[in-house]
Amino acid sequence: MGRHFLQIPGPTNCPDEVLRALAAPTIDHRGPQFQALARRVLEGIKPVFGTTGPVVIYPASGTGAWEAALVNTLSPGDRVLCFETGHFASLWREMALDLGLRVDLVPGDWRHGVDPAQVEERLSADPGGEIKAVCCVHNETSTGVTSRIGAIRQAIDRAGHPALLLVDTISSLASIDYRHDEWRVDVTVAGSQKGLMLPPGLSFNAVSDKALEASKTAKLQRSYWDWQPLLAANANGFFSYTPATNLLYGLEASLKLLQEEGLKNVFARHERHARATRAAVRAWGGGLEILCQDEREYSASLTAILVPPEFDADEIRRIILDRFDMSLGAGLSKVAGKVFRIGHLGAFEDLTLIGTLGGVQMGLQLAGVPIDAGGVNAALESLLQENR
Amino acid sequence: MGRHFLQIPGPTNCPDEVLRALAAPTIDHRGPQFQALARRVLEGIKPVFGTTGPVVIYPASGTGAWEAALVNTLSPGDRVLCFETGHFASLWREMALDLGLRVDLVPGDWRHGVDPAQVEERLSADPGGEIKAVCCVHNETSTGVTSRIGAIRQAIDRAGHPALLLVDTISSLASIDYRHDEWRVDVTVAGSQKGLMLPPGLSFNAVSDKALEASKTAKLQRSYWDWQPLLAANANGFFSYTPATNLLYGLEASLKLLQEEGLKNVFARHERHARATRAAVRAWGGGLEILCQDEREYSASLTAILVPPEFDADEIRRIILDRFDMSLGAGLSKVAGKVFRIGHLGAFEDLTLIGTLGGVQMGLQLAGVPIDAGGVNAALESLLQENR
Amino acid sequence: MGRHFLQIPGPTNCPDEVLRALAAPTIDHRGPQFQALARRVLEGIKPVFGTTGPVVIYPASGTGAWEAALVNTLSPGDRVLCFETGHFASLWREMALDLGLRVDLVPGDWRHGVDPAQVEERLSADPGGEIKAVCCVHNETSTGVTSRIGAIRQAIDRAGHPALLLVDTISSLASIDYRHDEWRVDVTVAGSQKGLMLPPGLSFNAVSDKALEASKTAKLQRSYWDWQPLLAANANGFFSYTPATNLLYGLEASLKLLQEEGLKNVFARHERHARATRAAVRAWGGGLEILCQDEREYSASLTAILVPPEFDADEIRRIILDRFDMSLGAGLSKVAGKVFRIGHLGAFEDLTLIGTLGGVQMGLQLAGVPIDAGGVNAALESLLQENR
Amino acid sequence: MGRHFLQIPGPTNCPDEVLRALAAPTIDHRGPQFQALARRVLEGIKPVFGTTGPVVIYPASGTGAWEAALVNTLSPGDRVLCFETGHFASLWREMALDLGLRVDLVPGDWRHGVDPAQVEERLSADPGGEIKAVCCVHNETSTGVTSRIGAIRQAIDRAGHPALLLVDTISSLASIDYRHDEWRVDVTVAGSQKGLMLPPGLSFNAVSDKALEASKTAKLQRSYWDWQPLLAANANGFFSYTPATNLLYGLEASLKLLQEEGLKNVFARHERHARATRAAVRAWGGGLEILCQDEREYSASLTAILVPPEFDADEIRRIILDRFDMSLGAGLSKVAGKVFRIGHLGAFEDLTLIGTLGGVQMGLQLAGVPIDAGGVNAALESLLQENR
Repeated sequence: MGRHFLQIPGPTNCPDEVLRALAAPTIDHRGPQFQALARRVLEGIKPVFGTTGPVVIYPASGTGAWEAALVNTLSPGDRVLCFETGHFASLWREMALDLGLRVDLVPGDWRHGVDPAQVEERLSADPGGEIKAVCCVHNETSTGVTSRIGAIRQAIDRAGHPALLLVDTISSLASIDYRHDEWRVDVTVAGSQKGLMLPPGLSFNAVSDKALEASKTAKLQRSYWDWQPLLAANANGFFSYTPATNLLYGLEASLKLLQEEGLKNVFARHERHARATRAAVRAWGGGLEILCQDEREYSASLTAILVPPEFDADEIRRIILDRFDMSLGAGLSKVAGKVFRIGHLGAFEDLTLIGTLGGVQMGLQLAGVPIDAGGVNAALESLLQENR
Repeated sequence: MGRHFLQIPGPTNCPDEVLRALAAPTIDHRGPQFQALARRVLEGIKPVFGTTGPVVIYPASGTGAWEAALVNTLSPGDRVLCFETGHFASLWREMALDLGLRVDLVPGDWRHGVDPAQVEERLSADPGGEIKAVCCVHNETSTGVTSRIGAIRQAIDRAGHPALLLVDTISSLASIDYRHDEWRVDVTVAGSQKGLMLPPGLSFNAVSDKALEASKTAKLQRSYWDWQPLLAANANGFFSYTPATNLLYGLEASLKLLQEEGLKNVFARHERHARATRAAVRAWGGGLEILCQDEREYSASLTAILVPPEFDADEIRRIILDRFDMSLGAGLSKVAGKVFRIGHLGAFEDLTLIGTLGGVQMGLQLAGVPIDAGGVNAALESLLQENR
Repeated sequence: MGRHFLQIPGPTNCPDEVLRALAAPTIDHRGPQFQALARRVLEGIKPVFGTTGPVVIYPASGTGAWEAALVNTLSPGDRVLCFETGHFASLWREMALDLGLRVDLVPGDWRHGVDPAQVEERLSADPGGEIKAVCCVHNETSTGVTSRIGAIRQAIDRAGHPALLLVDTISSLASIDYRHDEWRVDVTVAGSQKGLMLPPGLSFNAVSDKALEASKTAKLQRSYWDWQPLLAANANGFFSYTPATNLLYGLEASLKLLQEEGLKNVFARHERHARATRAAVRAWGGGLEILCQDEREYSASLTAILVPPEFDADEIRRIILDRFDMSLGAGLSKVAGKVFRIGHLGAFEDLTLIGTLGGVQMGLQLAGVPIDAGGVNAALESLLQENR
Repeated sequence: MGRHFLQIPGPTNCPDEVLRALAAPTIDHRGPQFQALARRVLEGIKPVFGTTGPVVIYPASGTGAWEAALVNTLSPGDRVLCFETGHFASLWREMALDLGLRVDLVPGDWRHGVDPAQVEERLSADPGGEIKAVCCVHNETSTGVTSRIGAIRQAIDRAGHPALLLVDTISSLASIDYRHDEWRVDVTVAGSQKGLMLPPGLSFNAVSDKALEASKTAKLQRSYWDWQPLLAANANGFFSYTPATNLLYGLEASLKLLQEEGLKNVFARHERHARATRAAVRAWGGGLEILCQDEREYSASLTAILVPPEFDADEIRRIILDRFDMSLGAGLSKVAGKVFRIGHLGAFEDLTLIGTLGGVQMGLQLAGVPIDAGGVNAALESLLQENR
């Protein structure tokens, strides 16, 4: 009877203010009222990316914004450097191949992020600059591992390589500190349904000058995703095709909430909840493991948990959904059945975290995982420390 | 940023379906569409009271339905038997005095419900039948004590006394098993904002034939609260004055949810949460006491907790509101500052309970109450037992 | 498939902003967030009444606010002066009788408002000041006749009579110019569902110092309606019983809309639409008559239209509802079947008026009333003149 | 203060039921509740297209569905036959060129639809079957001209040509009779924000077996728009990337409304309103012209009106927006400033049409266009005839 706990790592629980904003009547997307709205959100979204440059907003899923990042900057046969950090990094790589790019893949174990040293090594080995872009997923939604984009930028700089830096922030934006301009990212890809606390349906490209320049010569076929007509229309507060007006209402509401809390506080809140979650996992013991193996790379927006081999993570999730009306994230592809993921991002507070962890604890117990019942208490202790 | 935890013992957290129903456009309250709606809710509300008789719906707070119960059945100077079971019982008694009734008050300690033996004794001492009504609060919202109405009815029967039985179910209806017809209650008073999971603004009188008969000769001044014109209009699916149409939309949504879950399951859920809450209180120790002293009278919809004398319950509530964005109920009048109350009623599930208790635990710790940190775990254990 | 035209003289079409505001989660009515809300609406409502004094807000229909006005100021057996200006004036008078007051009734023909000369005459004939209150309906919702309260005040003054002046503004407040303080009205009665553009469920008493003084000695039985505890609680931003929180959200949204448009503009808009409606009625001819016979008393919020005796106004309304999905007001009691009423108040603009009148015109034609088809055009011409 | 009249030819006025459905909490797009929803809408949308085959739903604007239709069925350098029937047909052609297709363009005057005779002639002149697709816009949103797809299909058949038939129904679907299967259309392109009465953000491809077959060999670069993974996922009630869940809620609400009214009634309603609109235009005279010149091609969902050369259509629209809070469609590209467009589609009823035409009439008068004031009356007369 109560409210569903949507603790997948996105879509996240939308705040009431955002949901009600969606229900406002649609307006003329070519009229002055829309123009004012568009200007507000196009401007208001910039600080969330840490940029003063343009952010393109697509009526599309995050997958579309991936495609946009590639087709606007690259040409058929271009080489791109990808890293097998998890399921979504792999999907992006597959998309690159589908689009006719050549991919240099750095293999990975799904328990670590992009290694800056490897970035430097790979780029240093390409003095001719054949690699046109480095594609990184900032926060791997499938593994709960956060790659260190600042360090990756430094690695690129050390290699003195001109490749573009393309970063997927789908499950990190507005949850984990991110600095498009400071880190000189060329295209930042994002979606509406995670830290921005909106339903899915909008996605984003924050675009550097260098990326814009690249788009002038990039030859991959593009139309819907083409930045140029969108940016030209955006300059006047319009879009070059019909925008998803009601989701923009929601975006305005969401930006207001983020601004009221302050991004620094938002990031700190996510870190606090991630620490408490990891405290619970450690206290549970019972063979559970945090999938991420490098503590510098712990995700603040989700925690992926490896279950002991004799248990089926999907069965645990099923029990939790049935008994406690909570959705958790499944293990995907390589880790299917082995991992479940707790989303602790978006509109989420201490008490919701405690309820979430309580449900996980009881679910593990019902599934017979031999955990210690002290997990929730460890999380409470962690939160309490930070509240003193 | 997340959703506020509204854990006062009402108003309760309204389900999304109910809130969105409120936002439907208002319709003509004299037209056929309204008529169909009114018939559905006037019929649909009956099983919630355990009655097949009429239920009067007022556009008013529960306080109004108290007044309605008295003015429709009694005459100036009539004697009524009241019980000092807590704040709301006292307010109802004061209202009776304000309306010109004479009140026989059975004093109480705010830690027990109405004693059926005292009912029998008092009525047996009134062979002339001067006492016209027995007024009981089923579930005292200020104390978390549930009086046993079935046993009270038996006491009245044993005394062979003709007094009307008027019962306030404001914080019990649709949360705690209640049987208007079976217990031969004459007027049951209820409100929208507790177990019915609506915002405040509607209140109810379920009315027995005997009460209707009494209303024909009752002389207390009445107009707005008069049952007769309302019931006459209701017979055709209308109201004798403008009804609170949008709250009726919400009521329809709420009745649908209750029906889907099944009242028995609703009651069992409330009991499960109350048991888990008491398990937490006992495990906390630290001088905390459950206010209710008779385990037969534990409330399933809220738990009032007495704090040790050296602590200020309001300060604890303030900390919890500030740090954890959760509202708890204050101690009222006699127990102000000494008691806080946890509402666990309405649209409420296991994980919300765990979050709620987690917030209480941390708040108590921050306030320096020397509790054991095992309270939440005890609640988890209690829930787990019942989920096996 | 389109939106229903709710053109009864209230409830009116609620603006989207108001409807969505209703769907916000209910909050603790004893917490600081509620306190701030209550202070905003208690202050913000005052200018709408033209007062700087207190306005009591009830969780109740307008009928309740009628009762409140009487029971707070009068004692059993007190004489009040009432005027038979229509159905609602008659209902208020009946309520006065039910409450044990004595009523001096000035009969009327339902086509005129309160005659100030008669007020003066009646009061002058009561040198002993036995008449304790003069009760007027500002805008008779059943007839579309607006009594001139300013002139009535002058009449009372000329008579030098101490009677209280109680005025019902249920279908005029926030639609027709009204000045509680300037006209020295003692109690102004209002409801939420007309000019305030809310669903029904809130009602109001604006209260003068003189009325407050009278309440100290008034002896009519009262509890729910008693101003004193409400005003005492309001002083701190609270209510003495559970308020209808979500309707207060709507009220805040409505006050914002009224303030944005400006009350003067709101009044002018209603007058413009009333003039255009009358222009249509006159152009239709065909035996239709505007019920109001004194052009100084034309209502700006609704127009009641008398149909030729050979037609049934309810049948015309039925046709219009069936064919054009528009609700119109019925003739009530004395004028049942003879009159239909067009509400042109609340959230209502020129194009909605034209649609409304178009539906009325086609309905009259379908019913066989021998009208001239130029009615809508006459309204368009009237609007056009005022838009030049 | 009243509701904005959104009378552009889309986005259209969303029904309240649809808007409120959007505000439901987002759910797990990989869970059983979503699966059931997806199955309902994927099945429920089929009859709206007149198909029993698959309909792909994109989180995207209609522009994206245009791209999807081309990239799934064609290869670089393929020839497609396009018709210059208006602005949107021209944009689609430009997209085809951008995507690397070769376009045979049949020029047009923007006042006629696709001529079936020319289709036959062009295809007959291509015995080698070099033309791979015929692209038609069913209802040109920029001109209010509806091409006769059934006749075009017959022309293709007469030519015995194997080209695919791709049809844009963005402003006709669910407003104008359309038969994907019967007319053997291969890809039907549609969007959410017109006849489906949703906000923008969803778009559609209904796909024939022949189109599916073509997609196996089509070589245009594609990823986001690729039918195959979406259809594979749809088979299980899921999507291959995150769907726009809340817009799917709205779609379910919209399908329910369409089903309740019945598609035949929906189409008849649109035709009735189009006829009444044209009656108004003719009665206005004053040099106004219906842009569409072939009465077999009159659009039922919008009417484009040519203003006399000495007037600026945009100025007329501006006046109407300022004075009457109504948005009308602008003339686009070739007819900018010369044409304004009245949308009469979606959730739209007789009285809204009358209000709309009343606003247009007054706007024309305020702009000084020498019209006859009988336009609204002519529309009323037209509606009345059809209501008898």
